[in-house]
Amino acid sequence: MKRMLMLATACLATATVVAAGEQAGPWEALPTVAPAPADNPTTPEKVTLGKMLYFDPRMSSTGTVSCFSCHNVMEGGDDHRPTSIGVHGQKGGRNAPTVWNAAFLSAQFWDGRAPTLEEQAKGPPANPIEMGMKDLSAVVQRIRSIPGYRPYFEAAFGKGDVITMENIARAIAAYERTLITPDSPYDRYVKGDKSALTAQQVRGMKTFESIGCTACHQGALFSGPRLPAGQGFFVKFPTFPDSPYVSKYNLMQDKGRFEATKAAGDEHMWRVPTLRNLTYTAPYMHNGAVKTLPEAVRVMASTQLNRSLSDAEVNDIVAFLESLTGPFPEQSMPRLPPTPGELLVE
Amino acid sequence: MKRMLMLATACLATATVVAAGEQAGPWEALPTVAPAPADNPTTPEKVTLGKMLYFDPRMSSTGTVSCFSCHNVMEGGDDHRPTSIGVHGQKGGRNAPTVWNAAFLSAQFWDGRAPTLEEQAKGPPANPIEMGMKDLSAVVQRIRSIPGYRPYFEAAFGKGDVITMENIARAIAAYERTLITPDSPYDRYVKGDKSALTAQQVRGMKTFESIGCTACHQGALFSGPRLPAGQGFFVKFPTFPDSPYVSKYNLMQDKGRFEATKAAGDEHMWRVPTLRNLTYTAPYMHNGAVKTLPEAVRVMASTQLNRSLSDAEVNDIVAFLESLTGPFPEQSMPRLPPTPGELLVE
Repeated sequence: MKRMLMLATACLATATVVAAGEQAGPWEALPTVAPAPADNPTTPEKVTLGKMLYFDPRMSSTGTVSCFSCHNVMEGGDDHRPTSIGVHGQKGGRNAPTVWNAAFLSAQFWDGRAPTLEEQAKGPPANPIEMGMKDLSAVVQRIRSIPGYRPYFEAAFGKGDVITMENIARAIAAYERTLITPDSPYDRYVKGDKSALTAQQVRGMKTFESIGCTACHQGALFSGPRLPAGQGFFVKFPTFPDSPYVSKYNLMQDKGRFEATKAAGDEHMWRVPTLRNLTYTAPYMHNGAVKTLPEAVRVMASTQLNRSLSDAEVNDIVAFLESLTGPFPEQSMPRLPPTPGELLVE
Repeated sequence: MKRMLMLATACLATATVVAAGEQAGPWEALPTVAPAPADNPTTPEKVTLGKMLYFDPRMSSTGTVSCFSCHNVMEGGDDHRPTSIGVHGQKGGRNAPTVWNAAFLSAQFWDGRAPTLEEQAKGPPANPIEMGMKDLSAVVQRIRSIPGYRPYFEAAFGKGDVITMENIARAIAAYERTLITPDSPYDRYVKGDKSALTAQQVRGMKTFESIGCTACHQGALFSGPRLPAGQGFFVKFPTFPDSPYVSKYNLMQDKGRFEATKAAGDEHMWRVPTLRNLTYTAPYMHNGAVKTLPEAVRVMASTQLNRSLSDAEVNDIVAFLESLTGPFPEQSMPRLPPTPGELLVE
């Protein structure tokens, strides 16, 4: 009973947000096309340019760190590290969230501080421990100084003064909207192919729902209800701070959304992360402290549901979560324009 | 006259090597297939695996540096930096040589210390300032700990104990043998398409030969005569140490091949680098001190031929060198197997 009350409290904190959004059923397949904002419709030209920029390490001060460095689309869309490493070997504070299917999220970053992929793309380049550029105008200047980029910007955005941070971000976001995995075994199952999941996976799916994981991990992304851009679905983590895992994995040092807003109600509030492609994105949690998926399931059951699961339950849920992986679209490598010799890197 | 004598002296140092090799004409097109050693024939399975390993940052201690990091095949096969940056933000001492067409070189590294691509591939992973693994057995252990690699090794090398450093290097080398650019305007010109070069490029080609650049920059790669694997074509650089560029660009601090062999005759001897794809590989020289291609031409004319070129000569030679670029083959992105949660990175 205490557990249910605490859970209800956790959910109440986001009740107005939920009410504002579209309440989706618990088992929802991923759409096969990611939505795009009205002012940045996805076009092939933007995707081509955005892929180039995404892979271009010259977006960083040293010329060594690209979006791809920490969001590896050849793997899980993250960097398989507890926390990322930026320019000059500096370590960041949080685990890199996957870029796969981020196009479906209504708020970006662990703390949801960016409403769109476009706004997210403007964060890392000028972050001193990530890509280390002095400011966003230095990023624009860097890209402008590579003449081979101009025709791609003009193809995507027309003639004129089109090499801007807005357009850099728009192109990267357009590319990221192609990074989706809508044909996982789970999706095929939900769409009617009952052979797509194993008996164990179906059992895990039921346990996942019956013990209450879907209270937060719902919707096509398992990241909460579908909400308008900018409205994040935030939940307190840990909800049960007395869980032994809290100290074991140091889960309360980082105050989550509070670090961005400084609003008292935001302490330890976090955007509910997607559960898709988890088999590729170890280690887990905002601080990357939990190494394996079975342990992550135990930690979440304990910290969010005050529940200790049996090994069989854990194994079933893990099997279900494995059904949320891939397949990943085949991609061609971009060709990046050459660096003019005059272009300095630190 | 003094110039010719000095040049002759420089070439004499490698005379036996030249005699041992196949002496090719001055204008030679690049073969459309790269040769492979008898013990590592190129197969599609090795290329597939090698591309995965080439792009895999888990080959480094921190999980952040792959072959691709410093040899960017989406660009010039280098890293557009004066010298490279490895793990923990550490800077290396030499400019990253391009991987494009390295398959045709008879010795690898600036100092030619590795006879084959296979041997080269074993260098950076355990170099403390490059990829930082403790030793090569740690590299093997890392790759073994990623279960998704095993089927690819078995497809390439058969069943059994096939995840070895030898096979890792063989697969990477097999992939690198696909990284060739045999259809440049220059190649098409040499094969008979006289419209492939502009009048200025043809003029530059003649100047390039008449002033003596081809004494060293000859053959299909412009890196010297074709030699058996392990026999490098080494030339003294600078040949004219009184050139004002020597101090300006600090060209004698690094003693070249001597640093590897400690043999007195190897002081300031360097493997002659390829001139292909130079438009993508600024900055230039072993220390990356020269930023632009026109300046690189002036530096080489002064330090190797004791010659000061007119602006028109420089422009013509640069135009010719530009005809040695690309086109680069289209490539699909590899898919890397997931990281097991237990796998530690520093």
